[in-house]
Amino acid sequence: MKVALFGAGRIGKVHAASIKMDPRSELVAVTDVMTKAAGALAKEYGIEARSADDILADERIDAILIASSTNTHADLIEAGVKAGKAIFCEKPIDLSLDRALAVRKVAAGHDKPVMMAFNRRFDPSFAALKGALDAGEIGRAELLTVTSYDPAPPPVSYIQMSGGLYRDMMIHDFDMCAFLFGMPNSVMAHGSCLIDPEIARAGDVDTAVAVLTYADGRIATIRNSRRAPYGYDQRVEVLGSEGALAADNEIENTLVKSTAAGIVSAKPVFFFLERYMRAYAIEWSAFVDACVEGKKVPVTVQDGVNALALAEAANMSLAQGRPVALTSGMTGS
Amino acid sequence: MKVALFGAGRIGKVHAASIKMDPRSELVAVTDVMTKAAGALAKEYGIEARSADDILADERIDAILIASSTNTHADLIEAGVKAGKAIFCEKPIDLSLDRALAVRKVAAGHDKPVMMAFNRRFDPSFAALKGALDAGEIGRAELLTVTSYDPAPPPVSYIQMSGGLYRDMMIHDFDMCAFLFGMPNSVMAHGSCLIDPEIARAGDVDTAVAVLTYADGRIATIRNSRRAPYGYDQRVEVLGSEGALAADNEIENTLVKSTAAGIVSAKPVFFFLERYMRAYAIEWSAFVDACVEGKKVPVTVQDGVNALALAEAANMSLAQGRPVALTSGMTGS
Amino acid sequence: MKVALFGAGRIGKVHAASIKMDPRSELVAVTDVMTKAAGALAKEYGIEARSADDILADERIDAILIASSTNTHADLIEAGVKAGKAIFCEKPIDLSLDRALAVRKVAAGHDKPVMMAFNRRFDPSFAALKGALDAGEIGRAELLTVTSYDPAPPPVSYIQMSGGLYRDMMIHDFDMCAFLFGMPNSVMAHGSCLIDPEIARAGDVDTAVAVLTYADGRIATIRNSRRAPYGYDQRVEVLGSEGALAADNEIENTLVKSTAAGIVSAKPVFFFLERYMRAYAIEWSAFVDACVEGKKVPVTVQDGVNALALAEAANMSLAQGRPVALTSGMTGS
Amino acid sequence: MKVALFGAGRIGKVHAASIKMDPRSELVAVTDVMTKAAGALAKEYGIEARSADDILADERIDAILIASSTNTHADLIEAGVKAGKAIFCEKPIDLSLDRALAVRKVAAGHDKPVMMAFNRRFDPSFAALKGALDAGEIGRAELLTVTSYDPAPPPVSYIQMSGGLYRDMMIHDFDMCAFLFGMPNSVMAHGSCLIDPEIARAGDVDTAVAVLTYADGRIATIRNSRRAPYGYDQRVEVLGSEGALAADNEIENTLVKSTAAGIVSAKPVFFFLERYMRAYAIEWSAFVDACVEGKKVPVTVQDGVNALALAEAANMSLAQGRPVALTSGMTGS
Repeated sequence: MKVALFGAGRIGKVHAASIKMDPRSELVAVTDVMTKAAGALAKEYGIEARSADDILADERIDAILIASSTNTHADLIEAGVKAGKAIFCEKPIDLSLDRALAVRKVAAGHDKPVMMAFNRRFDPSFAALKGALDAGEIGRAELLTVTSYDPAPPPVSYIQMSGGLYRDMMIHDFDMCAFLFGMPNSVMAHGSCLIDPEIARAGDVDTAVAVLTYADGRIATIRNSRRAPYGYDQRVEVLGSEGALAADNEIENTLVKSTAAGIVSAKPVFFFLERYMRAYAIEWSAFVDACVEGKKVPVTVQDGVNALALAEAANMSLAQGRPVALTSGMTGS
Repeated sequence: MKVALFGAGRIGKVHAASIKMDPRSELVAVTDVMTKAAGALAKEYGIEARSADDILADERIDAILIASSTNTHADLIEAGVKAGKAIFCEKPIDLSLDRALAVRKVAAGHDKPVMMAFNRRFDPSFAALKGALDAGEIGRAELLTVTSYDPAPPPVSYIQMSGGLYRDMMIHDFDMCAFLFGMPNSVMAHGSCLIDPEIARAGDVDTAVAVLTYADGRIATIRNSRRAPYGYDQRVEVLGSEGALAADNEIENTLVKSTAAGIVSAKPVFFFLERYMRAYAIEWSAFVDACVEGKKVPVTVQDGVNALALAEAANMSLAQGRPVALTSGMTGS
Repeated sequence: MKVALFGAGRIGKVHAASIKMDPRSELVAVTDVMTKAAGALAKEYGIEARSADDILADERIDAILIASSTNTHADLIEAGVKAGKAIFCEKPIDLSLDRALAVRKVAAGHDKPVMMAFNRRFDPSFAALKGALDAGEIGRAELLTVTSYDPAPPPVSYIQMSGGLYRDMMIHDFDMCAFLFGMPNSVMAHGSCLIDPEIARAGDVDTAVAVLTYADGRIATIRNSRRAPYGYDQRVEVLGSEGALAADNEIENTLVKSTAAGIVSAKPVFFFLERYMRAYAIEWSAFVDACVEGKKVPVTVQDGVNALALAEAANMSLAQGRPVALTSGMTGS
Repeated sequence: MKVALFGAGRIGKVHAASIKMDPRSELVAVTDVMTKAAGALAKEYGIEARSADDILADERIDAILIASSTNTHADLIEAGVKAGKAIFCEKPIDLSLDRALAVRKVAAGHDKPVMMAFNRRFDPSFAALKGALDAGEIGRAELLTVTSYDPAPPPVSYIQMSGGLYRDMMIHDFDMCAFLFGMPNSVMAHGSCLIDPEIARAGDVDTAVAVLTYADGRIATIRNSRRAPYGYDQRVEVLGSEGALAADNEIENTLVKSTAAGIVSAKPVFFFLERYMRAYAIEWSAFVDACVEGKKVPVTVQDGVNALALAEAANMSLAQGRPVALTSGMTGS
């Protein structure tokens, strides 16, 4: 299966390595508006840096992997559909829910896999939690808590373009809630700017809590911070009628030092590249499974729409200081 | 220091043992409307079971410990004040915030210690967390999460009299938030009945989340469930600008069994008597410190009012489906 | 059951508290060659400080608790037997195995319980390990490791009188091996002086490893150090045919602090008084069970002889640099 | 740097992947007496399966990686030296210490890197422990314990050819002791056959403890078992004058399930391929560093001789039931 990569930045490089690792997929081309980055990646993999149009027109290319900037995702998905490619796209579909709903309509008729890259679903610990939950190992689920703290905030220039914390960062956690509990009835968002006043000036928050309530009474809580001085903190907890499940952080190593000052163990692995290294490879293989073996696409465009709808509801909730009900119009379902 | 005990039930017995353990305090009398229970406890301690009036009139008695049913607390505090006793009273002051405010007024002029028994403040792990937080070990605090799951729900008959989850159970967690973060600006409460439909019929919830927001942007989240099949789950987490603090459960023993089925460790200690055994003794000693050594009362009637005001706000929030602002009228401050 | 205490030092005080806590036993007298210490303890408990002879002659006294210095143990056990008392005695019986064997003979004919205070058998975690092992939860046992590090070495003056590390410190671990695995075939001892050259000058080691081999091929390893800068380190591990059991340290509290410097948790509780606080109370209740309810004495004089025989063998092994076989003569069995 | 692989079995495949992962090294040929295995691996990597002689004679090949059966190691190292190749060789050099000493002599004059593959030195947790130890983070080292339990014993046919537990399995732990503490003065070995009587019939043990004593009084203990039902158990602990270091197992995932039955966490990763996956890649990169950047070879032929000398001493100790002193003749130093 021949793959072309759109975007040669940090996340593009991660995906290029995943493509190499799966013996069923082969990276054959790369494109990036930063031609230097595209050239460097092309050289490393012994492939060609080409234009986007050229790639889309090339019938030998089976699939495109969209890892370019967010504002290009929706157009590229539509172009990929038109060109008959299988499509693997980084989240989000778009910052606008309306645009995402339009993309969903276009993708609906496509006969090739279109997959949204919500990588955390493929983290071995979170996947094991999902498996245990679905197997009924803790009975009926009641309470869910998703914790997601980044080690340090991104530059304010990034935040200005990001669509805000709920669409840029918490969207992963909204997807985790949807993955584990399905779509909620309503969203209540709380948020503050506690880390850097520049973030407030950019109209955003850096510290946030959201509560999602479900028709059947289940409740999910999300905790977000743009800064955890001890590293990337990524945890999920579920309480059920017969027990609880908790997926904790992965740590750098297993060394423990005991001295008069206390018992010191290693920190969580630094950031998403380290924590989700394995998840990225598993995620890619799941896409190849869908393309090559006809398996079900594990994360659909609808999943991308759902996460975006939750983010939109959170933004409205924060602005209005009240819970916001999810409507079927929001998710196009 | 001579002490009389009001209430010879489960919690009364715990306090009797604490009184015995502190060499500075001596249990000299007990009273209970259940004369049998009073008699049994009196016999065990070689003391007298007497009437409440008799005790209050006895000038040799320095302090009363109120561990009788909730609906007697307010009256007994007022009677104790009138009788010139030092007073140690189980939470809550009353189920009615107005009544609690009236008690606060009465107690305000009292020249003896009046202490509310919020035992969790004296748990060694939570106290260590408070100490580290106040010492600035994690910089400025940002996010707080208090988790409190009981092992199993009480009888519905208890729930009917309890004042509801927020006033009966979450009141401890509201106090923990007040202890660690002070009083919030607003409370948003979510709640469901997921464990036993009888609880819903009694007009209560058994599963709840509350979010407290602070004037300076800090956010606290409380998670409650009347049932955790693995035992009493009592945890506190704080994220700050320079790190995080987490106080975990105490476990039954340190044995770990590793077999092909997995790595199994012991459960949390069963319930509040086991978990807070040490806290009860420390709490009592703090009261004796206040009586004998003139130290500051560590948990005041105002603290009791505060917790109750948060519970009242939570009830209103749940009923109206929106965040409720705390007013100064609510706390009498 | 009326009890007299021999020895009002540190460990005597611990036992006095245990006697008070069990409602079936009552401390009625204390004796100590340090009359000041005896007087202070007597005053605290509202009892009399008396002479040893006086106590032994007092027929109202049912039991004696021997917590005086090691060189008095053997004589007091024999005197207690002659006086018809139930006897609870701190380890060891004596520093001399021959003397211990003589005591064993005397105690053999006694119709009252004689119990040796190997407190660690009553530690909840070690007892749970023993229970799981005996219940076959890990199949047949194969390898045992007992770790025992003190927080800091005692004064050299103590070491000079102690009988050496194997008889003074490792004797607890020999008993733990006997408790869990029974008596071995042979002992190989290794030892060094790494902490304080004064200890070497006193003819002792401060760092030691012993390996015990059993007739059926099982192997036990003991690790000892007089110093662990992070606190009292007391652990037991067993590997079996179907799994493993490990009892870890108890820690001061459950607080975990996460900062850029790492993840810091609390140290093990400081020393034996803290770690074995609960074990002391359980141990005493087991003795009262034997006296009052006719239950089996859980730690016998033979157990005391066994531990001493292992220590003697270890001393010989260290001196001769070879494994030493245990003979039936050594244990009088 | 062009590399040829000798041996296309399980461990050969692991190394092939490591070669691929390091962009500085390229796998160009493979050889194996099992031509089918060689052919399969050659096909997967798009390379040629060739004869050993052909490879050694090929001047374009810079380095050979010896992952063939143990009895070929010594000859291949010597042939590689003669052919002027850099050499990376799986442990052990040979089952005979004399043969290993002869190889050492041959390799001594070689001007290319010759590295022994003691993979555990490159495990991130053990390497972090070594780093902390060498940095003096726990002061002077005193006691070392190396635990190494395989999940299940190999076939008896393997054991018959293996050279016995001390040379085949514990050799890794001897190397770990040498890595962390240097070479000891003496070795005392204990061993039993507790898992499978067929192993005893093959003249071997399956359960073993060895104690290594050092000239300066330090003591190291090794625990080995051919079976741990819960998985591969690989741990290292060091006690020092100022603290302790412990490197624990890596676990399959971080999921914890809490139910009435207890708190269950994931098992250690299954076996050496899973546990040391990262170590194999790091180890190979260290060899490439030596070849390409002229860095020091981190594990030398002398290290291989040392580990073998310790195994030989252990065999003698077990046979004679006494500690065996290491002589300089044994290590050729």
